[in-house]
Amino acid sequence: MDPVVTVLASEGAGTAVLLLLGVGVSANATLTDTFGRGGGYLMVALGWSLGVFAGVYVAHPSGAHLNPAVTLAITAQSLLPGGPTELAPGIPVSLVTVLAYLVAELGGAFAGAVAAWAVYRPHFDRHPEPRETLGALATAPAVRSGPSNVLGEGVATFVLVLVLLVLARTPTELGPLASALVVLAVGLGLGGTTGWAINPARDLAGRLAHAVLPIAGKGPSDWAYAWVPVVGPVAGGVLGGLAAHALGAVGG
Amino acid sequence: MDPVVTVLASEGAGTAVLLLLGVGVSANATLTDTFGRGGGYLMVALGWSLGVFAGVYVAHPSGAHLNPAVTLAITAQSLLPGGPTELAPGIPVSLVTVLAYLVAELGGAFAGAVAAWAVYRPHFDRHPEPRETLGALATAPAVRSGPSNVLGEGVATFVLVLVLLVLARTPTELGPLASALVVLAVGLGLGGTTGWAINPARDLAGRLAHAVLPIAGKGPSDWAYAWVPVVGPVAGGVLGGLAAHALGAVGG
Amino acid sequence: MDPVVTVLASEGAGTAVLLLLGVGVSANATLTDTFGRGGGYLMVALGWSLGVFAGVYVAHPSGAHLNPAVTLAITAQSLLPGGPTELAPGIPVSLVTVLAYLVAELGGAFAGAVAAWAVYRPHFDRHPEPRETLGALATAPAVRSGPSNVLGEGVATFVLVLVLLVLARTPTELGPLASALVVLAVGLGLGGTTGWAINPARDLAGRLAHAVLPIAGKGPSDWAYAWVPVVGPVAGGVLGGLAAHALGAVGG
Amino acid sequence: MDPVVTVLASEGAGTAVLLLLGVGVSANATLTDTFGRGGGYLMVALGWSLGVFAGVYVAHPSGAHLNPAVTLAITAQSLLPGGPTELAPGIPVSLVTVLAYLVAELGGAFAGAVAAWAVYRPHFDRHPEPRETLGALATAPAVRSGPSNVLGEGVATFVLVLVLLVLARTPTELGPLASALVVLAVGLGLGGTTGWAINPARDLAGRLAHAVLPIAGKGPSDWAYAWVPVVGPVAGGVLGGLAAHALGAVGG
Repeated sequence: MDPVVTVLASEGAGTAVLLLLGVGVSANATLTDTFGRGGGYLMVALGWSLGVFAGVYVAHPSGAHLNPAVTLAITAQSLLPGGPTELAPGIPVSLVTVLAYLVAELGGAFAGAVAAWAVYRPHFDRHPEPRETLGALATAPAVRSGPSNVLGEGVATFVLVLVLLVLARTPTELGPLASALVVLAVGLGLGGTTGWAINPARDLAGRLAHAVLPIAGKGPSDWAYAWVPVVGPVAGGVLGGLAAHALGAVGG
Repeated sequence: MDPVVTVLASEGAGTAVLLLLGVGVSANATLTDTFGRGGGYLMVALGWSLGVFAGVYVAHPSGAHLNPAVTLAITAQSLLPGGPTELAPGIPVSLVTVLAYLVAELGGAFAGAVAAWAVYRPHFDRHPEPRETLGALATAPAVRSGPSNVLGEGVATFVLVLVLLVLARTPTELGPLASALVVLAVGLGLGGTTGWAINPARDLAGRLAHAVLPIAGKGPSDWAYAWVPVVGPVAGGVLGGLAAHALGAVGG
Repeated sequence: MDPVVTVLASEGAGTAVLLLLGVGVSANATLTDTFGRGGGYLMVALGWSLGVFAGVYVAHPSGAHLNPAVTLAITAQSLLPGGPTELAPGIPVSLVTVLAYLVAELGGAFAGAVAAWAVYRPHFDRHPEPRETLGALATAPAVRSGPSNVLGEGVATFVLVLVLLVLARTPTELGPLASALVVLAVGLGLGGTTGWAINPARDLAGRLAHAVLPIAGKGPSDWAYAWVPVVGPVAGGVLGGLAAHALGAVGG
Repeated sequence: MDPVVTVLASEGAGTAVLLLLGVGVSANATLTDTFGRGGGYLMVALGWSLGVFAGVYVAHPSGAHLNPAVTLAITAQSLLPGGPTELAPGIPVSLVTVLAYLVAELGGAFAGAVAAWAVYRPHFDRHPEPRETLGALATAPAVRSGPSNVLGEGVATFVLVLVLLVLARTPTELGPLASALVVLAVGLGLGGTTGWAINPARDLAGRLAHAVLPIAGKGPSDWAYAWVPVVGPVAGGVLGGLAAHALGAVGG
């Protein structure tokens, strides 16, 4: 099949599953009258990491990036001597395929966020605190500070991509669980200050869903913050990809 | 051995283990004077997912559906060109085998629910809140609304079956743990509004056990809601099976 | 090496590790001034299951029973036509080897419980509630009732042994993690009413440690209850072994 | 590549990832205004164990000791008849390589602790309780007592190293997850009285970072306690290595 079609279908479906389950657990832990209300940070972090777990299976044909930071990190590696020539088995690096990944990731993420809202609609509509309602769909900083927030997202995504790309060439015996556990490690360790977007599609699509969906009593979508979970993860992810490439020489 | 006998024994025993452990954890987290009282949503979701984990081993000879929604999803796939011809290795799709799965799933679920009640009988009998007593055996919606509740159960079962049937043809390196983690992902992400039955046998059998067992001070069994965790999971599961079949073409 | 020496060293060390980590997490979650105080049921159940995980590696040479109920269940299977002839690879079923397992399990469990007490000694000595102090070392029922408590321990151990012996002949891809997750499943689902001893050595050795150790302000060791976590697990375990043997015929 | 270079780069990077994620989760669970504040003992223990999981992948070329207690335990084993001759595949035991491990572990740990502080800087600076601020970076005893604290760290590291070195020669099917789960088992079971340093580099580097970093309102770094999480883990680790070597004879 045409690689671009494979990417669009596979990454789109996988990222939709990720956001459906991830936004779902955030809604479940936050919104009024849910059974999971107050379930806590560990439950939310585990739910997002298992969203990655499920999404990786669904996006298996396209390598399951599920995240523009991963796609761009592999693209950056491909520009280095000895770097990869494919974004996934059978999918060459090119402007068209890279764009296909980004489009699929953003589109799938939006669809997944909308589906999660549909499931939790009665709870979204009766939740009285607009900032928490936004928080079920998009990230916000615990302490607002551009440089510090970009650093937080950047370091978190750097570690995420570094470990994911190192483990992609290591025998793990764990399949997609390895990726999910890395996401959980980063969420527990580094998510406490920005809410660990570590994925531009996850945050942008969730924020866009918040902006356009008919949620009773919703407040503003805080677009002033939207650049942080894009710039931080993209910069951190690309640096993480380069670091993984450099570490690859150490074991040789 | 006759496939029907294998199915009846294997699915029956596996689904009984699932309900014994699952109803057990719900009782443990809810009922008066248990050690796990107030253990919270994550504990309950993990307990049910590990009930699947244990049940999958026990039902290994029959493919461990443990859930009519899975059986009917594979049956629906078998009607498509290129679909499977067996419900599990050695068990052909036929009206008789499908019925054997459904009977074993319902019967096993009922037996498991009764066993869990027997273990927690002193706690069932002294629990003062009838709706919580029912909640240990069957699901109830957080916000009662037919269309919304069916949508919630349907989307959750759609994702469950989609991922389960995709991973069944993917190298996972995880055995039954993969299925258990998908159940946990769906429970954490999408269970907050209907309590994630995602399995008609689980809910019907638990409700029937509530109706017939001698529980001190029990209230009504809420049969008015019983159609939701049947219709939603069956519809969502069949659609998930068809989506898994369609996605299979993408990777080719 | 002589099988009896292997069993004594290997099962003894593995069961000691199990009790050290298991009694440790119970002490950590219960006793005064520990960092884990109030950590909750899930933490305790997970800690015990990971104690099994660690103990299984250490007792690998002898098959890692770690539990008289498992040893006796395999012994019971060996009496059936087509049953096993070894308790573990290279260790034949005989009165001497069975006794070696039981002695090693009890002795190792006692050593592990004493080591856990040594680590937490300052906390044992300052804990003001004697029943909780006993609870860190041995089980007690939530609602005291001989028949109900034996039934609870029996059903829990039945499921434990059934699944453990079924998975021992199934491809799991998970190594000792599979056993640990079954222990966790049983703990979450069925431990809420008796505290899931599911292992006579675990409870007897812990109770004996409580009786003989110099713990400031300790109360009685409740020997009146001590028969329950012996009789229930032995009966349930043997029945679970027979059920696993019967299920083995279904898949043939 | 020169083994010393491999060790410095690989152990340095892996231990940095461990401390970044581990100090991160401690900060997240403790400091003012983080999203994970009050997340509890289980979250912190899981976060540290997943820090090991991630670090093991990164330090794969050098065998991923990440801990001087592990390096010294293998070194001690190498002095025994039949002991190992390499610290990792391709890295012979020698004074130079052992020193390279220790330098990389300490240096990497320091870099990781500084990075975690950088991510959580706004929260470190506004946290009002100096002992908790230190606790995010280094361990402290629940009940201060030199002999008891050394015993606690020693027993915990003994078990850690014993199981890690036993499982290194056992088929686990779990890759780095096995190590992470052993760390979690030890943290849950034996961390409640000293905060489970079980790694001299983790504690020394974190304490040094506390001493030199500009943290608003910080208190003393409690150097009087610093010997405990060095002496206990080194002694316990070496004994654990010898015990693992002895156990290896049992299975033969």
